[in-house]
Amino acid sequence: MSDLPKFVHVNECGPREGFQFEKVHIPTADKIAFVDQLSETGLKAIQFASFVSPKWVPQMADADAWVEGIRKTPGIEYTGLWLNMQGLERAMKFRDKLTITPGFSLNASETFSKKNTNRSVAEKLDEMPGYVAKFREMGFDKLDIGVAVAFGCNYEGAISSERVLGLLKDQETRARDLGMKIGEITLYDTMGWGTPLQVKRLVGLVRERWPDNPVCLHLHDTRGAAIANFVAGMEVGVDRFDAAVAGLGGCPFAAHKGAAGNICTEDVVFMCQEMGIETGIDLDLMIAAAEQAERLVGHALPGKIKVGGNLATYRARASAGA
Amino acid sequence: MSDLPKFVHVNECGPREGFQFEKVHIPTADKIAFVDQLSETGLKAIQFASFVSPKWVPQMADADAWVEGIRKTPGIEYTGLWLNMQGLERAMKFRDKLTITPGFSLNASETFSKKNTNRSVAEKLDEMPGYVAKFREMGFDKLDIGVAVAFGCNYEGAISSERVLGLLKDQETRARDLGMKIGEITLYDTMGWGTPLQVKRLVGLVRERWPDNPVCLHLHDTRGAAIANFVAGMEVGVDRFDAAVAGLGGCPFAAHKGAAGNICTEDVVFMCQEMGIETGIDLDLMIAAAEQAERLVGHALPGKIKVGGNLATYRARASAGA
Repeated sequence: MSDLPKFVHVNECGPREGFQFEKVHIPTADKIAFVDQLSETGLKAIQFASFVSPKWVPQMADADAWVEGIRKTPGIEYTGLWLNMQGLERAMKFRDKLTITPGFSLNASETFSKKNTNRSVAEKLDEMPGYVAKFREMGFDKLDIGVAVAFGCNYEGAISSERVLGLLKDQETRARDLGMKIGEITLYDTMGWGTPLQVKRLVGLVRERWPDNPVCLHLHDTRGAAIANFVAGMEVGVDRFDAAVAGLGGCPFAAHKGAAGNICTEDVVFMCQEMGIETGIDLDLMIAAAEQAERLVGHALPGKIKVGGNLATYRARASAGA
Repeated sequence: MSDLPKFVHVNECGPREGFQFEKVHIPTADKIAFVDQLSETGLKAIQFASFVSPKWVPQMADADAWVEGIRKTPGIEYTGLWLNMQGLERAMKFRDKLTITPGFSLNASETFSKKNTNRSVAEKLDEMPGYVAKFREMGFDKLDIGVAVAFGCNYEGAISSERVLGLLKDQETRARDLGMKIGEITLYDTMGWGTPLQVKRLVGLVRERWPDNPVCLHLHDTRGAAIANFVAGMEVGVDRFDAAVAGLGGCPFAAHKGAAGNICTEDVVFMCQEMGIETGIDLDLMIAAAEQAERLVGHALPGKIKVGGNLATYRARASAGA
């Protein structure tokens, strides 16, 4: 337990990964107001717009207006998602609002790669030079890399750690050939296959090979293991996590029977609070944002602490009564 | 991680702790059929009836008929709950069906003790001789003990580990004076205050003081931490857990804002399966029982794996397709 971080960095990705999954139409003005609300919670990184084809993800058709509309708070990194060069070019138009993070990733599953990006893994890797050229133009010399579907695949079954490490090495080699070092390494449990044992094993192997690169975990709660995987990640020193307010999210192409949200931001903040780990995030404001997310999507969302209640409140009440 | 158990014993308590919390009337025949269904999952311990006053818990008014109705499967321990001597005496009438476990416990919270049992902690401890006399008549020489609300209280706030250890020692001393040793020690996170750090710390202290007594954890998922607490418990060698099918449950007197179910049996079975730990329980049959529980109570229940799906199925499908 001595490896537990003192501070955990939360990258909020609910408005991006979450809203694209919802059936209901959310007006652009509400989306803008929601990001503005999140900006007041203490979050330092918010991913919201997705620069993808409105044909595939109609909920993101208003991405440009959404980005233009938000009130930018100093000190917060606002980011968008792109899956191809067109998307990156759209994102780059908003460099006054958005932070472009020089990132690249591969899917460990061929089947999912084709379904989600319409490209094989090798085809995706061959696109790296185009991205890197753009990132170098922008002055970056480090490339963040990652592997999605790193813990198992609904289509292909188990994913070996050799496969994941191989894909990271492929990206490192290609990046080096293009004159870039690698930065942060993200492991995505896209389909919620991970367990604490597997998290510790895979993160351990990655940290052994790349001891100086920060590791980030992107965890889905499809099978109820996300919070345990989060704690396991912290126990092996991971201090960067993607998370989604209220547990929004899930990938529309991941062949799940049911909802499959991201790990819930406010549940993560609560867990950190109770374990003495700082996040810089105000739990009550985060719970209020989660309640607003439920109003926007029009149904209950899976986060627990918004129902169970912040223990700080119970403690204060107990002290006052005592 | 070397402390992980090879086998985890699950004590199913959903039909007892769960049904008493539900507003809907569940016909006795359905309750009987449900216990019979659970008997086919591989569970070796099922707690269902509650011998409490129908005035306070009307859902248990049919406890006698329920116990009489079940089909007893050899090798399974069926148990009931009692909170006073009258309840124990009612349970003892069904010794052909029920296993009487010689158990006693105290609440760490005075306020909750009064609300839940209408007695102070000291008053409850003073009742031990009456119970022990009964248990000795039945031939027992060991008393299982426990502390409820051991991780924190919605009314009283933090509960210190000294308090919990003190209450365990009080029970041990009193039992010894009455000529009984202590057996299993159960720690109840009645209100869902626990974190993995706290589980490891408290279990560690208990095991240090009573190295030869098995420890059982009773975890609520009120704030989304139960599965992480379950893994933390296993990591310090706990191999006995209460759990409730579909995540049924919650105590009607615990002052929660919302539902506050027990840790979900099939999610626990899934986690064990994926971590290579045996439970003897068939995950698919357990998921089917969880789906039946949802039909009986007439609304969705919180368990995740019944929605996310057994990975064994995905693996088999992936192999067949490959």
